[in-house]
Amino acid sequence: MLIFTEEEIRKYVQINDEVIQEVEGAFTDLQSKNVQMPPIMRVDIPENNGEVDVKTAYIPGHEMFALKVSSGFFNNYKLGLPSTGGLMFLINALNGQPEALLYDNGYLTDIRTAAAGAVAAKYMAKEKVHTVGVIGAGAQARYQLMALREVRHFKEINVCGRTKKRLLEFKHEMEEKLQVKVTIKENAESVVKNSDIVITTTPATEPVIQSEWVQPGTHITAMGSDAEHKQELDPEILRKANLYVCDVISQCEVLGELRSALEQNIVEKTDGIVELGEITSQKEMARKKVDDITVADLTGTGAQDTRIALYAYKKLTEEK
Amino acid sequence: MLIFTEEEIRKYVQINDEVIQEVEGAFTDLQSKNVQMPPIMRVDIPENNGEVDVKTAYIPGHEMFALKVSSGFFNNYKLGLPSTGGLMFLINALNGQPEALLYDNGYLTDIRTAAAGAVAAKYMAKEKVHTVGVIGAGAQARYQLMALREVRHFKEINVCGRTKKRLLEFKHEMEEKLQVKVTIKENAESVVKNSDIVITTTPATEPVIQSEWVQPGTHITAMGSDAEHKQELDPEILRKANLYVCDVISQCEVLGELRSALEQNIVEKTDGIVELGEITSQKEMARKKVDDITVADLTGTGAQDTRIALYAYKKLTEEK
Repeated sequence: MLIFTEEEIRKYVQINDEVIQEVEGAFTDLQSKNVQMPPIMRVDIPENNGEVDVKTAYIPGHEMFALKVSSGFFNNYKLGLPSTGGLMFLINALNGQPEALLYDNGYLTDIRTAAAGAVAAKYMAKEKVHTVGVIGAGAQARYQLMALREVRHFKEINVCGRTKKRLLEFKHEMEEKLQVKVTIKENAESVVKNSDIVITTTPATEPVIQSEWVQPGTHITAMGSDAEHKQELDPEILRKANLYVCDVISQCEVLGELRSALEQNIVEKTDGIVELGEITSQKEMARKKVDDITVADLTGTGAQDTRIALYAYKKLTEEK
Repeated sequence: MLIFTEEEIRKYVQINDEVIQEVEGAFTDLQSKNVQMPPIMRVDIPENNGEVDVKTAYIPGHEMFALKVSSGFFNNYKLGLPSTGGLMFLINALNGQPEALLYDNGYLTDIRTAAAGAVAAKYMAKEKVHTVGVIGAGAQARYQLMALREVRHFKEINVCGRTKKRLLEFKHEMEEKLQVKVTIKENAESVVKNSDIVITTTPATEPVIQSEWVQPGTHITAMGSDAEHKQELDPEILRKANLYVCDVISQCEVLGELRSALEQNIVEKTDGIVELGEITSQKEMARKKVDDITVADLTGTGAQDTRIALYAYKKLTEEK
């Protein structure tokens, strides 16, 4: 079994067009191949405000598949440790042997999550985007913007978040890295009303975006909700949207924005909800009109993990 | 993260009274503590006759918990590889960080499975046992007998299996290791009719033991069925038994001998089915009469994995 460290993985895998294509391929695989993707396994450790999730997916035609263990321990800041961590295994699909351990501390999850946002925006957002709004100023907010840059040429970023210091760091870093103007907004309302694309990257458990703020033509990618108690969007937004897309409907029903909307009977399962893989399979713009409101609900899939892990393995072994 | 190899693990962990006590503790934990043990995660790779299972359990009060990835690829003999494999992680329950990788190729699973058989026999089998019968002559058959030896002083072994060569190897090894007489029987009927304890260790998908063969006073441990399609016992045996014990009822309903018995309405969930942890919590003999028939249905639990992994970690780190 080969073992790769986060440092090695960061050296060989960065957000770029190849990575976005891999993740797009994962969504297409989910539609077109007999992917074996069991429900997410989860262990809660409430006394330590922690959870460990396991995701996996075997995609026929690949020699290996990933099994990912990821953790979120939200008191870790008190210990001076990052909240999230994780690693992936690549398991040989012919004989079951572990072939590689990608000890990435969650880096590949960050990359594949951001890439999914870019895949959604590629097919769902307006072609011409001036301003992107982001709720939250953490690592995933940065990665989402870097990935989005591969598919849309935006000029400005609006951001809001809880801590002034983190917002200033975010502004400084993103202005330098993406060569765009970053404006720190007072609140989410101001971000949403003044952005063509809005990305939510929070661990919120109550809506951070209200339906009445959402302007015609907006595309929203909500990637924060990945657990039964999380929620970022006012469920009315799902009814208001001209197009609402799940990464995987069965996951979004339990973990995503769809959960609250179904519970409150704001949408029904029969309301023409689309999976992202249906869109990527067709390779056509899913947005019909420039003024449509579109929403992507991303909970994170084992298929993405398998595709990004295979990509990382290829890069790591071909370069050595 | 510390990494331990199979060779190191085999050096420090063998079947003995300590290991059996750890596994007994796991069953007691399942009754007395708020153990977080999600359903088993499973990926099937039918084109390669393979499956990968993930088990885990967080037991409050322990600093770490195990997450186990185990594989069964039943065409591996064609590749000259063992059918089963696996490894365990120990994850820190305070902060989610992986602390150790026990790359044991399934060795600790063999040990904790055999130990569970011994725990069941300790409380369920007659005190005086002359002959133990075993169906199957593989590694787990050997481990079950070695573990059973820690709780019962048997004098003879009856065995049956499919391949003459393996049976002769088994006889030779067990006679030397346990200093008992091993008799190779023609068939399972002869094993069952002439043994005080019967252990089934097969991957059978149809009953290998018929109800009418089972004599008064027999204790049966069935450990082979751990998947939806497996079965070792005629379900009538569950009705005939004076005491029928599951490792975990919710798992046995899906994966164990209980599945067929429920499907065929031979037993009902209300029929006083007992979990092994109820027995270990009381620390009293569960068998009431010497002529009772008792059956233990073992599917394998994440709690056993966590306790054996913690034990292995302690042994591996204190000796270094």
